[in-house]
Order: sequence, then C-alpha cells, then structure tokens
Amino acid sequence: MVKTCQWVLRKRASDLPILTGPDATFALIEADSGAPNKGEVLIKSLYFSNDPSQRGWVDAFTENERLYVPLLPEGAPMRAFAIAEIVESKADSLKKGDLVRVWTGWSEYAVVDAQRCTKLAPLPNGLSETHHLGALGFTGLTAYFGINDVAQARKDDVVVVSGAAGATGSMVVQLAKKVIGCKMVIGIAGSDSKCRWVESLGADTCLNYNSSNFAQDLVKATPEFVNVYFDNVGGGILDLLLTRMAKYGRIAACGAITNYNKSGNNTIGIKNWFEIITMQVQIKGFRVMDYVGRFEEALQVLLKAVVDRKLKIDSEIEHVVDGRFEDVPGIWMKLFTGVNQGKLITKL
Amino acid sequence: MVKTCQWVLRKRASDLPILTGPDATFALIEADSGAPNKGEVLIKSLYFSNDPSQRGWVDAFTENERLYVPLLPEGAPMRAFAIAEIVESKADSLKKGDLVRVWTGWSEYAVVDAQRCTKLAPLPNGLSETHHLGALGFTGLTAYFGINDVAQARKDDVVVVSGAAGATGSMVVQLAKKVIGCKMVIGIAGSDSKCRWVESLGADTCLNYNSSNFAQDLVKATPEFVNVYFDNVGGGILDLLLTRMAKYGRIAACGAITNYNKSGNNTIGIKNWFEIITMQVQIKGFRVMDYVGRFEEALQVLLKAVVDRKLKIDSEIEHVVDGRFEDVPGIWMKLFTGVNQGKLITKL
Repeated sequence: MVKTCQWVLRKRASDLPILTGPDATFALIEADSGAPNKGEVLIKSLYFSNDPSQRGWVDAFTENERLYVPLLPEGAPMRAFAIAEIVESKADSLKKGDLVRVWTGWSEYAVVDAQRCTKLAPLPNGLSETHHLGALGFTGLTAYFGINDVAQARKDDVVVVSGAAGATGSMVVQLAKKVIGCKMVIGIAGSDSKCRWVESLGADTCLNYNSSNFAQDLVKATPEFVNVYFDNVGGGILDLLLTRMAKYGRIAACGAITNYNKSGNNTIGIKNWFEIITMQVQIKGFRVMDYVGRFEEALQVLLKAVVDRKLKIDSEIEHVVDGRFEDVPGIWMKLFTGVNQGKLITKL
Repeated sequence: MVKTCQWVLRKRASDLPILTGPDATFALIEADSGAPNKGEVLIKSLYFSNDPSQRGWVDAFTENERLYVPLLPEGAPMRAFAIAEIVESKADSLKKGDLVRVWTGWSEYAVVDAQRCTKLAPLPNGLSETHHLGALGFTGLTAYFGINDVAQARKDDVVVVSGAAGATGSMVVQLAKKVIGCKMVIGIAGSDSKCRWVESLGADTCLNYNSSNFAQDLVKATPEFVNVYFDNVGGGILDLLLTRMAKYGRIAACGAITNYNKSGNNTIGIKNWFEIITMQVQIKGFRVMDYVGRFEEALQVLLKAVVDRKLKIDSEIEHVVDGRFEDVPGIWMKLFTGVNQGKLITKL
C-alpha cells in the first residue's frame, strides 16, 4: 500500500470542464492505493492517453443508459487508459517492472486486476512505447476499422476526413491514401500549419475550417462529390459535408467533438438531413470495441504498413506532454481547445 | 391533337407553395396536346398520384445536381404519376381504351412514349384500380423495401413509424406487424383520430405528436428502446427518436416532410446526432427506384398478403378526392397541411 494522488470527479460538467474555482470539475486528493490481493497488481502510471470520449463520462446531461461506458460516479478517479509499470504483483502473469496497457484512473498508483493489464509487445524500429496508446492502440484501430469496415473506402473513392490533424484523423488520412490507395483524400483541420502537416502525411489537400473561404474551398475541392466522409467532429462541418456527399456516399460517424462541450440548447443542429435521403447516404455510428475479435489482425496490418514505410508514426503523430500529476486535467483539456496535433499523451 | 388544360410551374416555391396571387407557384394554361408519332400514344389523365417528393422539383433553393429527378423547368407542366386512358395509339403495345400507369404531368391530355406506360394488371377481390398508385404502386413498394431491406426489421424488433397515417407509413405499420410479425410496432401521427385508425391497422399503439405529452408518451412506450425507426417526417420527431434508439438501431430515412416547406434558415436542426455514435446507429437514405429489379417479387408478396387478409387496403387506406382540373394543385397541397390520411389521390 502506498499514498497516491488522484484526480477525482467533483462536479459534472455542463459545458467545457472547469479547472479551478467553486465549480471545478475535478478535485486533487490524496488516498491510499490499497494493497494487491491474489490476482491483482499495484501499478504506477507512466503515461495517460487523452481521449475525447472521456468527456462523456463526466457530462451533466447524459443519461447513464445511453452510454456504452457508464458515467463516472462523483468522487471516483477520472477513468483513463494508460501505460503503467508493475510495482508489486500478486499475479503469476505479471512481475515487478513489467510495462502494461491498462484501464485505470487519474491516479499515480492503483491496485487493479491483472487480467485488465496487457503486457506491451516489443515494437519494430525502436518505435516509442507510447504508440501503444495511439497509432498502434485504440486510436489506430479506430481509424483502421472505421475507414475499412464502417466506411468501406475503396481505391475509386473520394474521401474526406475531419479532425485530420487529430489522433484518429491523422491515421485515417494515411490509411486511406497509402494503404487503401484512395483516388483522393481531403483533410479538414483547424489551422494552416496543421493542414500542411496533414498534407505531409499524404492527403491530396487539407482545408482549414477556420478560413473564411472554407465552404467554397470544400466545393472547389470536391467537384465529383464525396464518397466517404470520416467524421470526427460533427456540428457545422458535418452539416456542410452532407451537401457534398455523392450518391450512395458513406459516413463513418466516429466523433462529434464540436458538441461535447455544449449544453443541450447550444448544440449545433444538423439542417441538411434531407440530403441523406436524396443522395441515399449511409451513416454508421461505431466504436472500436465492436471489432475486438479482429484487433490482432488489424495490428498486424498496421505494423506491416509501418515497416513498409506507408504509415508514418514518428514523433509528430504524437503530442507527448511532460507534466506533473497536478497538470493532468489541464493537459487533457488541450483536446478541446484545438491546440493539439496528433495523439495527445501525458507523460508523468 | 386536342386542346388541353395544364398546370405549369410559374415560380419556384421558397416555402409552402402558393395557390393564388402574384407569387402563385403554378399557372393554369391551355395548350395543344400535340399528335402522337409512331411509338407514341395520346393519353387522358384519370387519376393523379399526390406525392411529397413532387415538392422538391419546384423548390427555389435546391440545386439540380443534388436531385435524383431533375428540377422542373419553369413553364413545364408539373410532373406527376397518374393512371390514364389511351385515347389514341400509334404503338403496337397499346390500344384505345387501355388503362395505364404513367409518368406524365398535370395535364388533361398528353402525348407520351408508349414505353413509359405500364398497362394496369387486374387486381383480386375487386380492389380499386387506384391501388396501382398507392398500396400496390410506388407507395407500397417504398414501404416494403424500406422496412424489409433498408431497416431490416425482424420479429424481435421494436419498430417506430412516423407519418403512420400517411400513404407509406400506413403500409409500413401493416407490413411490420402483420407480415414480418415484429414484437412491437408504434405509430406516430398528428391527431387522435388518425392514431386510432393506425391502431386499427395493427399498430400496438400510436402516439399523437401534437399532444403536449408526446415526448413523455414516447419514452413510456419504448422502455426497451427502439430497434427500427422508419422516418417519414424528419425534423423534431426524428431528433427525439435519436434519443430513444437502441444499440445498433437502424433508421430508414424515407422522407422529411417537416422540412419540405421551410427555407434554409428555418429548417429544424437535428441536435442529437451524438446518439448515433454512442448507440452505433445505422441510417440509410433510400428511394424505391434502387429496387426496380425486385418490384415484381415485392408485388407478389403484397398481393398475397392482401389475399391472406394480412394487409388491409380497403378504401380507408386511400384518400381519393374528386376534383375538377382547376383543383389539382389545391388537392396536392393537402399533403402538407396534415389533413390527409392514407394515399392522397386526385380523381378527375
């Protein structure tokens, strides 16, 4: 048993989570880790994965029955995916010093069931272990199944990817262009410098949604309309894309970060629904856990694409932020302020 | 050649079409029918089908490239599906007196290519020939392919149908409950009397969307959530249904009549898009012409269901309005004012 700092849920967020003051979303506390029983391990968190989906678990308006992962109870450490080191093991499968991927919480130390830990496999080419949280973790798998299975992108398709400079989007762009070989891949991102980076990953072009010409730029870039739209953002960009879908177009609905921090009445409404009917568009909401039985197969494809230099997962595709434990919620908040590029990871 | 009255497009509609005055959408004119050449026939219109999709062809905002049937040019007779009688034939396949289904216009007489005419097949049980425009025409086929193929409704499913007292909706309710045998079929309609009629067709219950308790009624009626939503209306009802979809729910997007007569900025926005992601919902826009190769197969199923008394297509499922030719646009407008029940047909 050790003393551990934890960031726990203090008050659900109705809009953008609040870091300080009387309405602060999280509180920093000190607690006992507890001691591992048989089959359990004591872990020390090394890296936290920062994911938009975490926002939903602390939302003030969402009903529990409508979430695939339940709401976080107030007082509990914020749920997070992490890379951790085994400090003490009461399980045969793990020993002190092993590095694992694990669902834990914003806690320096924690006792968890050993079965919830997956030992990190060695990566080729001296790639950073942090890729287990990103390009070779849930992020890469989300991109893989989303573009291949949900959107069914093929060589002849014009593909648009929003949030293209984000963790998932930057993988989708590469998979669509370099692995599937789609005819045209168009990224959408929030600044010119992000757009240039997305183009360096292989996008034929990338459009800045903060440009005043964005809508016209999109029309110009899609004279043959759009067969596949991989949607990471929802809101106004989605609404605009509905007017550019080709007949029988497919939309993979992966995220709606635009709306994560809006209370009900401020949500940006979708006004072009009718285009779904006239163009016979198909939309599928999905989550990566639907494909859990095929993770190994997908990881082999991703790893081969890295070795073949089709998939660039160098340090630019990650945004690793060094921080003290006090900084954990603040670093996570970068997801929602548009300053982030690639997979955002907190290094403790 | 004969003299014929025609209703032609005068001025595109930006909101609800206008019947009279300086901004009238249509104009009544007199014209020559023209004389049939070889392979053509002169037809006399007997019945017009009234369809919400006609609204799109005279819309002021829609771009041509986004319609599967092109916009109607100004000055042309309003396009309409009809039952007509052959008055004069220059084609081997048709003779004077034959009754046909045909895409024509709001015109008393017209010359058309004989290949565009389909001779009416005899119906069992002395059913009215007008069913060729409704339950046994595009309406019934839309319902059939929408509920079976697009929404993939099965016995275990809870099904919700909006516009349930409309032409398509009233067929969907019957197919879902009586032919597929779905566990629960819930209709949505605009008055208590319509709701009682929908229940008489087999719906387990039907909810009045004009009731002040509608949202709560829907929650109460769907404790296990909704597997299939057949959407004929779009707008606020669709938005509400998104909050009631079960995991892996399917939405057949058939119509959005709520928005047909709203100019761009007044369109009712969809705010609950995020539910599509959290519940992994699938949405498919469709139109019946995608299934043209299977029309015969479907009609056989529909006819057998009529003979087996599973499908009630008596006079109540049609709303045949006797009218003079001057009344044609006014009768069509009943589609948009909520006074109509079942398939709206104009009898000249």
